[in-house]
Amino acid sequence: MSDVEGAGQRRGREARRAARLQRGALSVPYIVRALAPTPVLSEEGLALIERNAETLLEEIGIEFRDHPRSLELLKGAGCDVDGTRVRFPRGLARSLVSTAPAQFTQAARNPERSVRIGGDALVFAPVYGSPFVHDLDRGRRYGTIEDFCNFVKLGYANPYMHHSGGTVCEPVDLPVNKRHLEMVYAHMRFSDKPFMGSVTHPERAKDTVALCEILFGRDFLAQNTVCLSLINANSPMVWDSTMLGAAEAYAEANQAVIITPFILSGAMSPVTVAGTLTQVLAEVLAGVSFAQLVRPGTPVVFGAFVSTLSMQSGAPTFGTPEAALAIYGAAQLARRLNLPFRTGGSLCASKLPDAQAAYESAQTLVPTIHAGTNFVLHAAGWMEGGLASSYEKFVMDCDQLGAMHVLARGIDLSENGQALDAFREVGPGGHFLGCAHTQANFETAFFRSTVADNNSVEQWEAEGRLDAAQRANGLWKKALSDYVAPPLDPAVDEALRDFIERKKASMPDATH
Amino acid sequence: MSDVEGAGQRRGREARRAARLQRGALSVPYIVRALAPTPVLSEEGLALIERNAETLLEEIGIEFRDHPRSLELLKGAGCDVDGTRVRFPRGLARSLVSTAPAQFTQAARNPERSVRIGGDALVFAPVYGSPFVHDLDRGRRYGTIEDFCNFVKLGYANPYMHHSGGTVCEPVDLPVNKRHLEMVYAHMRFSDKPFMGSVTHPERAKDTVALCEILFGRDFLAQNTVCLSLINANSPMVWDSTMLGAAEAYAEANQAVIITPFILSGAMSPVTVAGTLTQVLAEVLAGVSFAQLVRPGTPVVFGAFVSTLSMQSGAPTFGTPEAALAIYGAAQLARRLNLPFRTGGSLCASKLPDAQAAYESAQTLVPTIHAGTNFVLHAAGWMEGGLASSYEKFVMDCDQLGAMHVLARGIDLSENGQALDAFREVGPGGHFLGCAHTQANFETAFFRSTVADNNSVEQWEAEGRLDAAQRANGLWKKALSDYVAPPLDPAVDEALRDFIERKKASMPDATH
Repeated sequence: MSDVEGAGQRRGREARRAARLQRGALSVPYIVRALAPTPVLSEEGLALIERNAETLLEEIGIEFRDHPRSLELLKGAGCDVDGTRVRFPRGLARSLVSTAPAQFTQAARNPERSVRIGGDALVFAPVYGSPFVHDLDRGRRYGTIEDFCNFVKLGYANPYMHHSGGTVCEPVDLPVNKRHLEMVYAHMRFSDKPFMGSVTHPERAKDTVALCEILFGRDFLAQNTVCLSLINANSPMVWDSTMLGAAEAYAEANQAVIITPFILSGAMSPVTVAGTLTQVLAEVLAGVSFAQLVRPGTPVVFGAFVSTLSMQSGAPTFGTPEAALAIYGAAQLARRLNLPFRTGGSLCASKLPDAQAAYESAQTLVPTIHAGTNFVLHAAGWMEGGLASSYEKFVMDCDQLGAMHVLARGIDLSENGQALDAFREVGPGGHFLGCAHTQANFETAFFRSTVADNNSVEQWEAEGRLDAAQRANGLWKKALSDYVAPPLDPAVDEALRDFIERKKASMPDATH
Repeated sequence: MSDVEGAGQRRGREARRAARLQRGALSVPYIVRALAPTPVLSEEGLALIERNAETLLEEIGIEFRDHPRSLELLKGAGCDVDGTRVRFPRGLARSLVSTAPAQFTQAARNPERSVRIGGDALVFAPVYGSPFVHDLDRGRRYGTIEDFCNFVKLGYANPYMHHSGGTVCEPVDLPVNKRHLEMVYAHMRFSDKPFMGSVTHPERAKDTVALCEILFGRDFLAQNTVCLSLINANSPMVWDSTMLGAAEAYAEANQAVIITPFILSGAMSPVTVAGTLTQVLAEVLAGVSFAQLVRPGTPVVFGAFVSTLSMQSGAPTFGTPEAALAIYGAAQLARRLNLPFRTGGSLCASKLPDAQAAYESAQTLVPTIHAGTNFVLHAAGWMEGGLASSYEKFVMDCDQLGAMHVLARGIDLSENGQALDAFREVGPGGHFLGCAHTQANFETAFFRSTVADNNSVEQWEAEGRLDAAQRANGLWKKALSDYVAPPLDPAVDEALRDFIERKKASMPDATH
């Protein structure tokens, strides 16, 4: 294998250089925020929640189920282990998580696409985990590997999407025990942006690492984080063996994990924001402690997926003000631990890419940005409470992400930004359309939406009275038809396919 | 007249008391914010913009056109007046505006609806000024007085709308010189929330004050602010006689004015946010100086209507990140002058109540809330760049306003908010749905949207696959059909009608 790797690395470098020259300014690798994060809790409020989280960890404890090694490691670190219940003496978890880096770089196969995660960096990634897909032509249906590849291509083609993501939809047409291979391959083949690994079984996490070894080379992998994976708690206060096993596999390979309580408040946490934040903090402290015990220094992200329930029907609700407050509060808690933070996205419960979808998505995304989030999963395409990945919404959400690039930059106070010469040229009662300052800034002055229609009603009528979703329908089709795959060294591609085919042949298809 | 007033006042009080008992908790008079405003500019940035605004005022000056009294007053105060160009020595305008109150109460005829404007208060008012109306059944058409009354009724009926507003749509079926009488009457008759006055001619402002005198009584009016009116600059850097005359009429009657630069950046101000903020500040300082010279202590609001242009087509654009940054920056400038602040709303360019409308509206509204805005005009119903008032969007936007009530409250850190008992009861792996803490908080736990559909896709299909706008269509029709007018003393009503009919008979219809 080592010969192939060597050649692959060399040729990969050349291909990347060519690609770099070719694409130049098309894409923004990630956002460096100029805006300060918005706080919603005072120092006293934060200290109170931290104190309560320590009380949870000490008094009630966290379950680590069906994963003896985690119990061993935590006991060795000073936890009180009673069966699968792990209680942390006050302050222990905070001290265990302190070995995690405050930020890290996730390398992409195209180095220009590598992203920094943490600090003032902000990275957008697509929707994750939907079993269904939706578009205006075919409606709602199970996702396939073709849909999966389409979403990878749409993410690759969009300049505001920094990351290729993970399970952009579930390819339900493939056997459950082999899906991960084709998913990881699709990210490697159809995009050159960074991506996420499989977490549905520790063995599949190891397959992801093996494929990364082929793509990046063993030496590079040993020194770099190339894979970021989503490790969800089984809230309230349970970590299960699947997630612990996957986290362990990645941590051992020095690959990054997002430790995320996935909470619908009212069912999986108390109905209050402060109570929910307390639980989020306790679960993250426990999960990150484990990852750091597996390998101190493992890059981790403090995750918080928090939304609410309808207390009438029990249905999940999104874009709610309680969810926004939880986003802000969790971000503050993560900063105090000096950990990168993941939350939010463009979340909604709507079954269509309609006004409900957009209100709820913006009501999630804007708080996500202002909170100072570092990694935003579900930044585009999420619909129907995460049950469906929407083609139209993917395009509409990406347009909003473009706007967020400008917002996060803040206000330009340079001499050009101040524009005093424009006032001197134009004066009272004039207009600025033709003045020298406007001419000089014309090209870059304002964010240009590709989805919004700002024309007169007469022109809009002449163009067919399309709503935003109908325009987005045309845009994703054009993006797919214009798609050109990023170059990939054929030898590397062959090695990836060889690994995948051998792995698939090694076991019968299975539905779990 | 004074007999009628006395009786009207007395009977009005009784009617109000009855109404109070009747309606109790239906409505929220205004929001008292717990969240601190979000800053986007540092102390240095703000000082720089203030310095530049003083440069504009001193070096370039502001036009006060066709309004000799303003020139007289400003000259008397120390301005350099050259024709209609008024230059302010550095620091003069800041000192003139210092007589304006930091906050004030606008009384409603139902005292429970009175609003505080300024400080930590936040008041929502409907769309203002659209010549067209739009609904899903009849499409886009010119507004009529029937539409006008409908929007007043919808605003009255909605618990999250604090204010009845002003020109909720233009009643194009009435003669231009008589419209204001029926508009003011509609607010007085069909709502008991506070409202706005006419500004299209100084004489019409005086009519508004006269009608207020009948409704509230002369003594009450002399001591209270009952009317708030929108005085727009003719940007860049021009105040015209219509607006100055209307502002003068209101200031003389101690009624409040919102001094608002109305700016589409790129045409009416430079293409940069910092340049635009500089101009906003200079125009507001000049306008407020005038109002304070007419009557020191006149309640004023620092207004900033700022959006952007498409530099390709010249069309106005809304919900853009540059507009959001201007909202935040202008709010900071207003706070430094210790003035109440108006901006933002639920603005959009869309021709339909679709995803574009919702994204753009939320991208305006959320910054409006976080900026610390005190008075939000266009909080519901604005569509098509302000050309159309939409029935469906009014309902959808009001739903979002409800969510903003919760956001602005911030995170509850009380013992109940902390929910430690819930954790003790439920423990790891359990669920919170039935626990005592959830039961106790069930009713008020989460904001309940009346527009969003959070049901399963199967139930949503069974209910007809409606999108958000279609559901809103049913909701506004139900609100209008359920509408019951607030009680109004018949003698007051008769006096109002008498004034209006005599005024209408006193002049021929006119189209200007």
